[in-house]
Amino acid sequence: MFTHTQALQYEAKPDGPDPDFARKLQEVLGGQWGEMTVATQYLLQGWNCRLPGKYKDMLLSIGTEELAHVEILVTMIDRLLDHIPLKPDAADRSKESAAGYGQLNPQHAIVNGGGAYYRDSMGLPWSGGYVTASGNLMADFHYNATAEMQGRLQVSRLYNMTDDPGVKETLKFLIARDHMHQMQWLAAIEELKADGLEGIPVPEAFPMEEEPADFGYAFLVASDGPDAAAGRWAHGPALDGRGEMTARPIEASADAPQLPPGDPRLWGTPQ
Amino acid sequence: MFTHTQALQYEAKPDGPDPDFARKLQEVLGGQWGEMTVATQYLLQGWNCRLPGKYKDMLLSIGTEELAHVEILVTMIDRLLDHIPLKPDAADRSKESAAGYGQLNPQHAIVNGGGAYYRDSMGLPWSGGYVTASGNLMADFHYNATAEMQGRLQVSRLYNMTDDPGVKETLKFLIARDHMHQMQWLAAIEELKADGLEGIPVPEAFPMEEEPADFGYAFLVASDGPDAAAGRWAHGPALDGRGEMTARPIEASADAPQLPPGDPRLWGTPQ
Amino acid sequence: MFTHTQALQYEAKPDGPDPDFARKLQEVLGGQWGEMTVATQYLLQGWNCRLPGKYKDMLLSIGTEELAHVEILVTMIDRLLDHIPLKPDAADRSKESAAGYGQLNPQHAIVNGGGAYYRDSMGLPWSGGYVTASGNLMADFHYNATAEMQGRLQVSRLYNMTDDPGVKETLKFLIARDHMHQMQWLAAIEELKADGLEGIPVPEAFPMEEEPADFGYAFLVASDGPDAAAGRWAHGPALDGRGEMTARPIEASADAPQLPPGDPRLWGTPQ
Amino acid sequence: MFTHTQALQYEAKPDGPDPDFARKLQEVLGGQWGEMTVATQYLLQGWNCRLPGKYKDMLLSIGTEELAHVEILVTMIDRLLDHIPLKPDAADRSKESAAGYGQLNPQHAIVNGGGAYYRDSMGLPWSGGYVTASGNLMADFHYNATAEMQGRLQVSRLYNMTDDPGVKETLKFLIARDHMHQMQWLAAIEELKADGLEGIPVPEAFPMEEEPADFGYAFLVASDGPDAAAGRWAHGPALDGRGEMTARPIEASADAPQLPPGDPRLWGTPQ
Amino acid sequence: MFTHTQALQYEAKPDGPDPDFARKLQEVLGGQWGEMTVATQYLLQGWNCRLPGKYKDMLLSIGTEELAHVEILVTMIDRLLDHIPLKPDAADRSKESAAGYGQLNPQHAIVNGGGAYYRDSMGLPWSGGYVTASGNLMADFHYNATAEMQGRLQVSRLYNMTDDPGVKETLKFLIARDHMHQMQWLAAIEELKADGLEGIPVPEAFPMEEEPADFGYAFLVASDGPDAAAGRWAHGPALDGRGEMTARPIEASADAPQLPPGDPRLWGTPQ
Amino acid sequence: MFTHTQALQYEAKPDGPDPDFARKLQEVLGGQWGEMTVATQYLLQGWNCRLPGKYKDMLLSIGTEELAHVEILVTMIDRLLDHIPLKPDAADRSKESAAGYGQLNPQHAIVNGGGAYYRDSMGLPWSGGYVTASGNLMADFHYNATAEMQGRLQVSRLYNMTDDPGVKETLKFLIARDHMHQMQWLAAIEELKADGLEGIPVPEAFPMEEEPADFGYAFLVASDGPDAAAGRWAHGPALDGRGEMTARPIEASADAPQLPPGDPRLWGTPQ
Ligand SMILES: [Ca+2]
Ligand SMILES: [Ca+2]
Ligand SMILES: [Ca+2]
Ligand SMILES: [Ca+2]
Ligand SMILES: [Ca+2]
Ligand SMILES: [Ca+2]
Repeated sequence: MFTHTQALQYEAKPDGPDPDFARKLQEVLGGQWGEMTVATQYLLQGWNCRLPGKYKDMLLSIGTEELAHVEILVTMIDRLLDHIPLKPDAADRSKESAAGYGQLNPQHAIVNGGGAYYRDSMGLPWSGGYVTASGNLMADFHYNATAEMQGRLQVSRLYNMTDDPGVKETLKFLIARDHMHQMQWLAAIEELKADGLEGIPVPEAFPMEEEPADFGYAFLVASDGPDAAAGRWAHGPALDGRGEMTARPIEASADAPQLPPGDPRLWGTPQ
Repeated sequence: MFTHTQALQYEAKPDGPDPDFARKLQEVLGGQWGEMTVATQYLLQGWNCRLPGKYKDMLLSIGTEELAHVEILVTMIDRLLDHIPLKPDAADRSKESAAGYGQLNPQHAIVNGGGAYYRDSMGLPWSGGYVTASGNLMADFHYNATAEMQGRLQVSRLYNMTDDPGVKETLKFLIARDHMHQMQWLAAIEELKADGLEGIPVPEAFPMEEEPADFGYAFLVASDGPDAAAGRWAHGPALDGRGEMTARPIEASADAPQLPPGDPRLWGTPQ
Repeated sequence: MFTHTQALQYEAKPDGPDPDFARKLQEVLGGQWGEMTVATQYLLQGWNCRLPGKYKDMLLSIGTEELAHVEILVTMIDRLLDHIPLKPDAADRSKESAAGYGQLNPQHAIVNGGGAYYRDSMGLPWSGGYVTASGNLMADFHYNATAEMQGRLQVSRLYNMTDDPGVKETLKFLIARDHMHQMQWLAAIEELKADGLEGIPVPEAFPMEEEPADFGYAFLVASDGPDAAAGRWAHGPALDGRGEMTARPIEASADAPQLPPGDPRLWGTPQ
Repeated sequence: MFTHTQALQYEAKPDGPDPDFARKLQEVLGGQWGEMTVATQYLLQGWNCRLPGKYKDMLLSIGTEELAHVEILVTMIDRLLDHIPLKPDAADRSKESAAGYGQLNPQHAIVNGGGAYYRDSMGLPWSGGYVTASGNLMADFHYNATAEMQGRLQVSRLYNMTDDPGVKETLKFLIARDHMHQMQWLAAIEELKADGLEGIPVPEAFPMEEEPADFGYAFLVASDGPDAAAGRWAHGPALDGRGEMTARPIEASADAPQLPPGDPRLWGTPQ
Repeated sequence: MFTHTQALQYEAKPDGPDPDFARKLQEVLGGQWGEMTVATQYLLQGWNCRLPGKYKDMLLSIGTEELAHVEILVTMIDRLLDHIPLKPDAADRSKESAAGYGQLNPQHAIVNGGGAYYRDSMGLPWSGGYVTASGNLMADFHYNATAEMQGRLQVSRLYNMTDDPGVKETLKFLIARDHMHQMQWLAAIEELKADGLEGIPVPEAFPMEEEPADFGYAFLVASDGPDAAAGRWAHGPALDGRGEMTARPIEASADAPQLPPGDPRLWGTPQ
Repeated sequence: MFTHTQALQYEAKPDGPDPDFARKLQEVLGGQWGEMTVATQYLLQGWNCRLPGKYKDMLLSIGTEELAHVEILVTMIDRLLDHIPLKPDAADRSKESAAGYGQLNPQHAIVNGGGAYYRDSMGLPWSGGYVTASGNLMADFHYNATAEMQGRLQVSRLYNMTDDPGVKETLKFLIARDHMHQMQWLAAIEELKADGLEGIPVPEAFPMEEEPADFGYAFLVASDGPDAAAGRWAHGPALDGRGEMTARPIEASADAPQLPPGDPRLWGTPQ
């Protein structure tokens, strides 16, 4: 259960309107790697977590913080949309704003009447399919670490796409939180190992002797770039502590498949 | 440029048809974490890679191998679909097959005439939106590692959902390759650091002094689970080697936002 | 069964081409609240309606009219696309048109060769998921009323985004029809009540005594805005005529959930 | 900004597992009219609201409560999934469970490892496109009222699809809240009118004299059902207090459109 | 503009309810190749058609007929849903019905209250993205011919998935219309050629001398199946009457690409 | 199984960067009719093909070639993105580039860091739902022929939207291959007939005597365009060699449907 305060976790006040940048900012609100994704993902992982204690508590805590980031971005976009040029001529006080006009999202005016929404910078709606809660914390924490990396990368790019000091101030806050959150998930990955809960490969409990031959340790070369096997992934001790990394060309080990004729009741091309 | 051999990388021959399992297997062919995702993602990361050499070559090599896994799964599903019951009564030789009939995907018969397609186990089409190639290899390799973890997890679950020896044989191969590929991406992450190309936090080059105060090092507690800060993520040296992890309750640092009235030409509720 | 006349219900002739506005107009053709939605929704509700007579007849009548509105918008967009600038330099006869160039939808040229299609102003395809026909006319008529409100709002905004007299003439017709249609659905809601077919809350037939305690009449305050309970929704006689509206702070009434360990065959993080 | 307590707003404890019903319950979690929709929609309308005071405060309050309903449904689904049959034979203790096996969602096991996710009962991911925040409170409150009607209708149907007393107890709570919330939005609609903020038709401020002739007051008959005009929507005083409702057959008022030839650079069929 | 009669173009009356088959029938109503696609596609091609006369008139005529097929399928599905078992035990009079229960679409009950909707047999909403109106009639008529082939194929498969005489009667009508419509599009393709409006390759007007060397006439062998070039497509006179079909192995004609380093402001992996 | 060479099948080197055109080029990479569609479609049809020999071998060969076209387009887009203006002022060296700025895809910078991705020119992700492999080669080869027509049409349009000689050179290669591939599918259609494998109508094996009366040979006129029946599709010998094409007005042959009342447990509007 949640309670809400209208005070913001951090200030979200641009120095002036900028509908061009408002559109771009939608990416980190409603895009694949935006705040909607991390908020709903961490909460779902927390609620679904069948292991009580620190991991579950931590997931619910960070998920709740991310809701505040959704709120910050919505507020920022709303303010950037305070004056949307409705026609090209209104956009034409300068060539800069003419260019900016071309980038603005017409749905911000037509659909939302000057407000944010849950879509990315190209107008694709946010999807529940972005969220993963697999029940295996090791797999999910790696996804979470990725999400914070992709997220910080995108906000850092947006930082270079605006000169507005107020916008930059908010982006710096988000960049700092993603910095912390990257470290958090990497620390949690280490802790999962230290607690003996999961290791590499995920799932560690699958009986290793079921794996055929050396397919678990061989890098298979299938492209002609000369350095494909010149990295750590193709030689040296395996990262699961149980073998040696090797490399060899990819090869077929089974015949070309022969499929039987189709069911005539399905009216396919006969044999 | 690619060339193709009809011989398979590994055998894909079930002992008998099983349309119920054919539907389930679609998850690792056309689902978010299936072979279509990793094949197209590694190739795209390789083609887009602006750093020539081992990383680019490796990406193109593994992407090419994953295409062979797509082929293996399509072939397996085709064979599992050799006899699809078209009506409930045909399904009714036993209660087991009645249950299995209920699980089969009707599009396998109506749309594909007894063949696989690029959708997941609930019929959602595979989406290009699953794929990320950010231009930052550290961020992307973490995503790749996740993909192999989620993938191996799903195949290991499917392994427990069938008794067919031929199917299990193929699944074991895929499990072994995901084992190798998890280690590969984790090794590549280490190599990126060793090569001085990228570190934590991603992007490492963003000037750290721009981050406000301690927001880059503090775990903020926003839920009342008592152990949220009882992990490594809330104390001890920061994983970037530059600070100390701390914890404190979340708090607001900005006033409740006051938005100006909307543009009357947009006909919103007036103020 | 339908018959079609090529004569239009209302004129759809712009004074000149305007590919920028053509893109924006897609919103009310193929967007969530566009003419495709109301046409297919009213027809579906009519066909599915299990109550013969005036409601069913009215639904099929208005759904058929909405098909004519789809036709009008397609025709208008086609004419606005008569001259699409294919390159930036062609767009550059004035700064206005340069700005307009940035807004044009490249698929109008590349995919459609100068024609409309069933997508919204950001290029998202129209979806059958926009349509609801629940079998409960009271619930659906409220949705229909909303659709006409959102629709009239969007067309009224578009009216302020063009100076073309021919376009404005057509938009005025659509605004007038949405005016009528809003009143139509609100009248039908009243008639449903007068006919004793459905009331508030929907579904009225669910036995009210099954509802726990006062949860059906209490506004629960979960955010700190001071005026959340200062409206009619938090005091006075209930709108179902059966109780009194009240307000109180939200509170938890159940313990924090404890989930049992997961099935080990699913390889989640163990307990 | 939000804070979270792990205690639930209401109990979510089934008497036993039921993966068949778990799948069905996804509809009101992640479907078009589910709790994800109302939670994110009311919060967005609240954040975007440019009119400070009771409406904004109320929106943020109810949006925050709806997050607790998301949590309740996730918890309930998790518990219903405690024992998922992995194969048809495990499902086969009775014909009932064989039927139930056929209905279970395989992603609950393969993807989530026994947990809920943000998809509907047919596996379609929840979409940000379900959410509308138009900036016009009258239009949006009608949508909100609809959402609570469709929602209560769906939960009431689910109530008739289970015999589990624990599940029914939770559904009754949700039904009661939707009862209250229907009345809340209808009361807010009345209050908007009473406050002089918006009326019928939406947007009321659009100058009525711009509407052509009588198109704002006429029901147009386009289908041959004899009673299409036999309701209040086709006679009597108009609901905007400004005219009289009438009815007449639909007719064309413009010629069949003649489109000019296409641009030859787009290679369409020439004229 | 359209008018509607409630009388059906053809009878749609099953001998009994069958919710299992109702779900399957959704495929040809709201699937990629269903009646919604052809109805909206032919109408859009007709409205967009810039060549007045027989082709435009024919497109609008057949599009209008397809709307009647949508109506027939909705009506049939509604009747097949007359008694939906709400629980597994209700399904359990026989093993057949238990199997059928597993196949039923729960949204038919929960969302639609016993009615059809615009989704396919796996619950994917119909999408405006299925529709193509390219402005080139030759390209589009081939798509239309395909649509009628895929459509007739699917209905013929459904014909083998039911024993209900009433259902089979309606399916036979749809099969006959798809028979006619296949011939219609193939005839229209011939007529386009005879009228000198378009030829092979589409677009015929693109200056042939711009095509490099023999890439317009060579089958390139890229897979090791021995008979890839054993068909008419690899030898004999070209179908455009201007060359000779040949075959040769695929080969690279350009170097491996070297991409320049990325923009440092985008924080990618440096070079 | 595949192997890859980094050398390209054809050169993909623009004379200079052009982010505006990079966005447009996404259409033929990740759009409905782009290279991703044909590559994955031909491979899937090949793998699913239950008839061994020339058709299957040919499908796998051309599918493998199309993967090389995906690679060419990704490389071209990457190079066109070498310098993306991050702000309107950077775009403003000339009005042309200001116009171009408005068209650029912000995700190319924010999400991909200067690289291509699997989406169309409006940002819609490529979908596995674009692909059809029906098991009936005649139906599928018509779809394939369409795909090459729509594809060549789109590339020919793009050819007129750029002045860059390097880009035009690559487009000419793609145009030539689509020329060949159109002829290839039309030849394969002829060969299927010559081999006696399938004819018109598809599926030819469905017993013709099951079709009711003359519905298989009559063009039904449902729109008032005077020339709807003035083409070959409405008179002359039928294309299946078995009848005569005729025309007549559409008419209803069944009564208006009467649906029974709904199940009261679904709480619809009662009768
Ligand atoms: Ca965040
Ligand atoms: Ca793999
Ligand atoms: Ca309308
Ligand atoms: Ca609720
Ligand atoms: Ca049809
Ligand atoms: Ca190609």
